[in-house]
Amino acid sequence: MSEAGRTTTTAFPRGTRTDHGLVRSSNLGLILRHLREEGGRSRARIAAATGLSKATASTLIADLLARGLVTEGELAREGAVGRPGLLVSLEHDRVRGIGVEINADYLAVVVVDLRGDVVSETTHAIDIPNMTADEALDEVAHLLRPVLQSLAAAGRSVVGLCVAAPGTIEPASGQVRFATNIGWQDVAVRAGLSARLGLRPDLIGVENDAKLGSIAAYADIARDGIHDLIYVTGDVGVGAGIIADGVLLQGHDGYAGEIGHLPLAPEEGPCRCGRTGCWELSVGLPPFLRRAAAVDDPVRDPGRPLEERLGELRERALNRDPRTLDALALTGAALGHGLSLVVDVVNPRALVLGGYFAWFEEWFTASVDDVLRTRMIGRIAAPVQVSVSRLGLSAAARGGAHLALETVFDDPTVVEPLTPPST
Amino acid sequence: MSEAGRTTTTAFPRGTRTDHGLVRSSNLGLILRHLREEGGRSRARIAAATGLSKATASTLIADLLARGLVTEGELAREGAVGRPGLLVSLEHDRVRGIGVEINADYLAVVVVDLRGDVVSETTHAIDIPNMTADEALDEVAHLLRPVLQSLAAAGRSVVGLCVAAPGTIEPASGQVRFATNIGWQDVAVRAGLSARLGLRPDLIGVENDAKLGSIAAYADIARDGIHDLIYVTGDVGVGAGIIADGVLLQGHDGYAGEIGHLPLAPEEGPCRCGRTGCWELSVGLPPFLRRAAAVDDPVRDPGRPLEERLGELRERALNRDPRTLDALALTGAALGHGLSLVVDVVNPRALVLGGYFAWFEEWFTASVDDVLRTRMIGRIAAPVQVSVSRLGLSAAARGGAHLALETVFDDPTVVEPLTPPST
Repeated sequence: MSEAGRTTTTAFPRGTRTDHGLVRSSNLGLILRHLREEGGRSRARIAAATGLSKATASTLIADLLARGLVTEGELAREGAVGRPGLLVSLEHDRVRGIGVEINADYLAVVVVDLRGDVVSETTHAIDIPNMTADEALDEVAHLLRPVLQSLAAAGRSVVGLCVAAPGTIEPASGQVRFATNIGWQDVAVRAGLSARLGLRPDLIGVENDAKLGSIAAYADIARDGIHDLIYVTGDVGVGAGIIADGVLLQGHDGYAGEIGHLPLAPEEGPCRCGRTGCWELSVGLPPFLRRAAAVDDPVRDPGRPLEERLGELRERALNRDPRTLDALALTGAALGHGLSLVVDVVNPRALVLGGYFAWFEEWFTASVDDVLRTRMIGRIAAPVQVSVSRLGLSAAARGGAHLALETVFDDPTVVEPLTPPST
Repeated sequence: MSEAGRTTTTAFPRGTRTDHGLVRSSNLGLILRHLREEGGRSRARIAAATGLSKATASTLIADLLARGLVTEGELAREGAVGRPGLLVSLEHDRVRGIGVEINADYLAVVVVDLRGDVVSETTHAIDIPNMTADEALDEVAHLLRPVLQSLAAAGRSVVGLCVAAPGTIEPASGQVRFATNIGWQDVAVRAGLSARLGLRPDLIGVENDAKLGSIAAYADIARDGIHDLIYVTGDVGVGAGIIADGVLLQGHDGYAGEIGHLPLAPEEGPCRCGRTGCWELSVGLPPFLRRAAAVDDPVRDPGRPLEERLGELRERALNRDPRTLDALALTGAALGHGLSLVVDVVNPRALVLGGYFAWFEEWFTASVDDVLRTRMIGRIAAPVQVSVSRLGLSAAARGGAHLALETVFDDPTVVEPLTPPST
């Protein structure tokens, strides 16, 4: 039932979707997705594969041509007999999707074309917890303005901009409700960026970083035919994005996957969220660093870049430093325990570890794998494939950029025709 | 994004779905769903609401008329001006969906019409654990044969038969993989019933009882605009069905919602599943009965009907019997603890308690509510609505019957035309 790379979300306001006239838009989207997955095709093959009549397919393709979303090129010779047709392909260069991640110590911006290929990627070091939210949004706008200007100058149409933040998000209103680790509460990101950038509010989505990370991980793993996965990211906080049968699980309020506060660490006491014994107090970055090194160890100096400190700890682990290995074993066991619960609830095919977990692939994947194997019920459960994310710091921004594109695949009429369509 | 009552599943083999020619089938289904939700409509209004052209809508409605799935009746006067049109309505009497539940001590059969209304319901006491699987399937076939015969005699078309079983199911092969509480392992239910009843295998679905219970609960609660819910059923085993944005969560192997074996009761020791400390050892029916009554108490006599014993315990609770109240409090706290974890992962709007939990509404809903309220993060999480199922023993069979109907809404061409369609 899944289509590779297809994800749905409420990160963008409903206003961007057509509620009536659904059928034409969804048939246009059907053709566009088909071309994304299958590459260039003749009109006849597109009609056959989608089940549309040839006449309807031709009308819809004319519409997509007018909007600059497909091109018509070389002659297709499909099969030995019959009249050759022109090849219709995705025109990847007309539109762009943009993803932005706001994290405690960096901003990342990723721009993708209609195929989902990254055309530019920027990471910018910053100290968000020591700024007001307004100052932070100024910085984001400052980073985006030249990107938007150069896209406009090159004639690219920006179909969406999706912002990732590390916390609980209200996608419908475009607000960050609660992001303890950057000190945000009720920050109107959509409104703030719309005002600063002069961009229509319905083009701006806001979503949780773990959810967007899961979309990026899914775009990567869908090629292997995997459509059920959990992406877990670890920083100060821990969160997950759950993809079930190719669809991002949102939950009623958009809080599905908020697993950092599961009550699995009773020995850890109170959490900033108001609960006690939250799981992230045992598997987040701060407890891992405390286990791995003395308080005056340079790897615990928050003034140094995180990548550098994690790189050093990784070196120590490779050199079999006992304290580092103990910290990895303890943290890995707690990680495996918590993830095994989530696996029971959603039954994924794959688990992808992001954030700081990704730096310690050999140890954390082995620990998680161990717990999952000992907890398999009889022979009924297929083993879950455990891996780390290769996308580094830009994972969430990349997922945001992918998600921004989905508005076009859901309804290609959001892109204005270049010329009036010939009907 | 949700449509009330819409659920998808892999309970039926993929062969029943058209993979090509998708568009026509899905547009036929679109009209049929529209009529289910909105009642009778004129052609013009159907076209307007679905976004189809009037010509296309008319052709598709002619097709549905030919298949006997809609009728055309009285004159519709919609609005003050314009030519009145004939009202097109769902013809609920042509097709039937059947649900069957196989439980330890009863079989239930529910037949629904195309609107989802129950037209017949039978419950039959039985002792499945003391039979072979073949004997049990003989009994099921024995119960279904007269039902199928009378439907055939009345000219109804059976579009699907969906069987609920209390265990892990492999929907693709139609097998019960592992159902400890009825002693089944690798039982080919689809093949067994197809052979016994002479029914095409692709018309027979097999699904987990909690999953089907969640579909029945959803059909009930969708009217309140709730599209994210968890249905939890308690018997010897405990399981859940999760509906997320109107879609049943399956998981990669179909095991999503298998929460009975979460490692939340370390004090309880080994479980029949091979793990230790499983949650159902603390919240299932046997530990509740042990807490509530002495070993020689008649409410623990497995020879007596369960409803009678639960009814007696309910009486005792209403009369404030201390041991019963203690058992309810202990079990309720453990129930709330486990459910709060599942709520964190999937963020539902509602929790519906089924099985034996439903007999103790006042106590269990209060306990679960208490845990969820103390664990709300700040003011961000909306309260989860906790209730008990009103559907009694037939919940899973009812869900199966609803699911059987979905094949028609997904693709109305599965119903043969009564007369050749006029094109």
